[in-house]
Amino acid sequence: MQERALIATIRRLAGHGPSALRVSIGDDCAVWRPGAGREIIVTTDQLVEGVHYPAAKAPARLLGARLVGRGLSDIAAMGGEPRLAFLNVAWPASLPERWRLDFLRGFAAETRRWKTAWAGGDISGVSGPAVASITVIGDVPAGQALLRSGARPGDLLYVSGRLGGAALRSMRRITPRLALGRTLRGKATSCMDLSDGLSTDLHHLCEESGVGAIVESSRIPVARVSSRRAVCSLDRALNWGEDYELLFTAKPTTRVPARIAGVVITCIGRCTRRVSGVRIVEADGRCGPLEPRGWQHLD
Amino acid sequence: MQERALIATIRRLAGHGPSALRVSIGDDCAVWRPGAGREIIVTTDQLVEGVHYPAAKAPARLLGARLVGRGLSDIAAMGGEPRLAFLNVAWPASLPERWRLDFLRGFAAETRRWKTAWAGGDISGVSGPAVASITVIGDVPAGQALLRSGARPGDLLYVSGRLGGAALRSMRRITPRLALGRTLRGKATSCMDLSDGLSTDLHHLCEESGVGAIVESSRIPVARVSSRRAVCSLDRALNWGEDYELLFTAKPTTRVPARIAGVVITCIGRCTRRVSGVRIVEADGRCGPLEPRGWQHLD
Repeated sequence: MQERALIATIRRLAGHGPSALRVSIGDDCAVWRPGAGREIIVTTDQLVEGVHYPAAKAPARLLGARLVGRGLSDIAAMGGEPRLAFLNVAWPASLPERWRLDFLRGFAAETRRWKTAWAGGDISGVSGPAVASITVIGDVPAGQALLRSGARPGDLLYVSGRLGGAALRSMRRITPRLALGRTLRGKATSCMDLSDGLSTDLHHLCEESGVGAIVESSRIPVARVSSRRAVCSLDRALNWGEDYELLFTAKPTTRVPARIAGVVITCIGRCTRRVSGVRIVEADGRCGPLEPRGWQHLD
Repeated sequence: MQERALIATIRRLAGHGPSALRVSIGDDCAVWRPGAGREIIVTTDQLVEGVHYPAAKAPARLLGARLVGRGLSDIAAMGGEPRLAFLNVAWPASLPERWRLDFLRGFAAETRRWKTAWAGGDISGVSGPAVASITVIGDVPAGQALLRSGARPGDLLYVSGRLGGAALRSMRRITPRLALGRTLRGKATSCMDLSDGLSTDLHHLCEESGVGAIVESSRIPVARVSSRRAVCSLDRALNWGEDYELLFTAKPTTRVPARIAGVVITCIGRCTRRVSGVRIVEADGRCGPLEPRGWQHLD
């Protein structure tokens, strides 16, 4: 596809943004006016052929949508509202035009679904696997972003939804927990999204907050998924990743409903002092360290 | 390098941002408070091994710096101030650790040079050429961004610096024209940066503004560069690209100095009505269409 034709296609797919987006695709930068009293939040993520999805038969439309979902999940984890999305792709010449268009359509449809303006990006060739990169810009009321660093010893530890399902159904559409994140503003003391697996992500949260944690294995909400050969196990719920649920903490005095914005909320443990490390109480009552066995970005 | 070690390295290289950057590397999103009365401007760009630079012997530190320079050049073209930079990389396992560190060092040094906070990003593996992607967020006083779409018939056409030098010295460090862009706020009627080559970029500007243009070849400031085998030619100045100078328009009544912020400014022609197209007056006085023969992003 010629560059002009492709840009015209993208402009059509991207549609018009909100009036606060003064300039979009076609200029050197997008220009956007944030609301008064808001802080800007920014996240970036990548989708690499052969790393994040298998090269063969990858469903283009779903991949485009999943890239948006991954970015928006980070916005949800901050308690924010998504506003603008930017897409960079490096695509090999062998990638069929149909696949490219489907990827762009999936990306466009998912940004529209979550009222996020597709405001720009870049397209390049590459003599190897396809690489796609997203940037999402959102905003929150100033001072109210949910950080990873706010947990304190004694805070209770919660997760949304059920974990480990991606191990058996990895190519699902992602539902970013935006409504939940919004509700947690001013209530949660810390929050992050579960992308690398609970065991690894909990270590990240504890490190940023300077606390330890103790998790009860019997409380972890394991997804009720099975295929012909396997059912979802505790191990998968702890270590598989790609859950895109929220992990958050709240003071013991904060009332946390069993369901928020339609999503089940489960208390799985509590924060401790840092020196105690990150531990898990097994089904037989024994307590040991919870090793981070989730996704390692550079292995 | 292990993920933890790499993130620690990046945090050290990135250093501390300004106080308006409340949260940086380590959380789900960066959190930044823009100043009152400012609009946000956002640009993204890519650097692909084998497309934007040769795979062999590519100088890592310079490449990291050039990726920053390319992003900041777009900020300059809007008359903006750069604030935050985000880096996504997909790197093959074969890339030496030394090369990776040098790339990150080059990226970090260049963001510091231009007082831009390195506020986040993502690192992934890939089984093919390296792909790096940058997002730069800046701001401008509300309503004062320099757009591509503001040129009107009769406006004069200017470029900064000298063009075509990249054809003979392609791996230079980029000096984004930030001070020039700032000075042009409220003076230029339109502006963009020259990355694809004057012949192609002028078509982009004319298309966005709905005008035509006529350029005098004798006025184009050709770079004074020569190698043993070639000198910089008018053809290279028109079509090679990678100049990272500014192309802008101003009303004939606007006084435009011959030098702004230390950079030579040259009037190369004027805008016409759209129906006249984009034309060039050759040295012999003949006038014909100026074909866009610069960089095509998808060829």
